[in-house]
Amino acid sequence: MSETMSTWVSFVASREPIDVQALGENLRLNHYCIDEVVPVVGESPAELAQGWHVVRVESSAPVQLPENVIGESILFPGMTQHLHYTSASQNQALAQRSRAELAPSGETTAVLIPIRKSAAWWQLAQDERYAHFQTNGQTPGHTAIGIEYVDRVFRRLYHSRYGSPPVPYDFLTYFEFERAYKEDFRHLLTELREVERNPEWQYVEREFEVWMTKMG
Amino acid sequence: MSETMSTWVSFVASREPIDVQALGENLRLNHYCIDEVVPVVGESPAELAQGWHVVRVESSAPVQLPENVIGESILFPGMTQHLHYTSASQNQALAQRSRAELAPSGETTAVLIPIRKSAAWWQLAQDERYAHFQTNGQTPGHTAIGIEYVDRVFRRLYHSRYGSPPVPYDFLTYFEFERAYKEDFRHLLTELREVERNPEWQYVEREFEVWMTKMG
Repeated sequence: MSETMSTWVSFVASREPIDVQALGENLRLNHYCIDEVVPVVGESPAELAQGWHVVRVESSAPVQLPENVIGESILFPGMTQHLHYTSASQNQALAQRSRAELAPSGETTAVLIPIRKSAAWWQLAQDERYAHFQTNGQTPGHTAIGIEYVDRVFRRLYHSRYGSPPVPYDFLTYFEFERAYKEDFRHLLTELREVERNPEWQYVEREFEVWMTKMG
Repeated sequence: MSETMSTWVSFVASREPIDVQALGENLRLNHYCIDEVVPVVGESPAELAQGWHVVRVESSAPVQLPENVIGESILFPGMTQHLHYTSASQNQALAQRSRAELAPSGETTAVLIPIRKSAAWWQLAQDERYAHFQTNGQTPGHTAIGIEYVDRVFRRLYHSRYGSPPVPYDFLTYFEFERAYKEDFRHLLTELREVERNPEWQYVEREFEVWMTKMG
C-alpha cells in the first residue's frame, strides 16, 4: 500500500475547457480533444461527442477532484492494478515488444474504451477466466491476438469495477498510437471482437470507443 | 456494477460503544467485543485491545460512515470480490463443504486477520501467484490446507488493496466458528504459516489477529 502501488486516474470530459490549474497538486495531466464517439454494444453517454475536451488526471494517490472545477463534466475513474490474466513468460514477451507512451501531437491518436463484462463472466472461476486469454487449439485468445500489435499500440488498463462510487463499466482500456496506424488499431479491435477467435468477448455487454487526439 | 456485485464492509473498532443507530440506513450490523489482539508479523495498532467494541458494517453500496459518529474509532474497510485463485472444481468442492455464518452467541468466536503481502508477491505473474494456492508434489498449498477446515470454520475474504483511502493491508480475512473449535482454528493458522507446506505465506509481511466474541 505504498503510494506507488497503483496509478489512479480520472478522465474528465467536458463541453467547455475546465480550469486545470485548480484541479489540485501532484497530478499528471494530459489534454485531448474528442474526434469521434463510436457506440459498440450497450449504452454510451449521449452527450459525449466530437469537440469535447478531455483531461486525463493521473496520481499516485486516489484522485478527488474539486466539485466546483469539474462542474458538469463526465468522469471516468479507474486505477492500475497487478496483472490478472498473463503468465510470467507472456509478461516477459509483452515487455520486450511493447512500445512506450507517445508524446502529444496532432498526429497522436488516443482511444478510451470503457468496457463492462456480464455477471456470467464474473461468476466464472479464475481458471475459466484465465483460459479465455490463452491460446487453445485453433483459438488464439486475447493475449496472442494482442501481442501482434503492442509494438505500434501503447496500451494501459485501468480497473473501475469495485470502485467507489460504482460506475457502469469494469475497465477503462486506453490506447495510443501514431495516426498512421489507425487501420491497424481498427483491425486489432475487430480481431478481439470475433468470438470464434477470442471467446472472452462474448461476455462484453457494454463498450464504446472515444477517439481523441492527444494534444498536451 | 449492479449494487449486488459486492459487499462493502467497515469494521469499526472503538474503546467506547458508538451510536450504531446514527451510522446510516440499509446497513447490516454485527456486534463484537475483542477478547485478544495477537501480533504475528509487522506492526499492529497499539491501542486495539481486549474490551474494545467492534461493529461490522456491511452494505451493498460503498460504506461512508458519519465522522461525528465514528469519532476516534479505528476503521478496517474492505469489499468482497470475485475469486482470484480457485478453480471451478475447487469452488464446487468448497461450496459443498463450507459451513454457513454463525448466529451471534457467547460461544461464537470471530477472528479478523488483516494481511498485507509484499511488493514481491504483487510483482509475480498470475500463473505464479495462482500456483501458490495449488498442490504441487509434497506441498499442499493454501487451498488444500484450508478445505479440511471449512466445515467448521466460516470464512469471508474482503479486499482492501486498491481501496480509497489506502490502508496498510491488502486483505481482511474474517472467520467464525464455535468456541469449541478454537484449537482447530489455531491449527489451521499454523498450517497456513508453514512456508514449506504453504509457500504463499513467505510473502506475508504484516499480519495480526483480532479475536472477538460475536455478540449480536
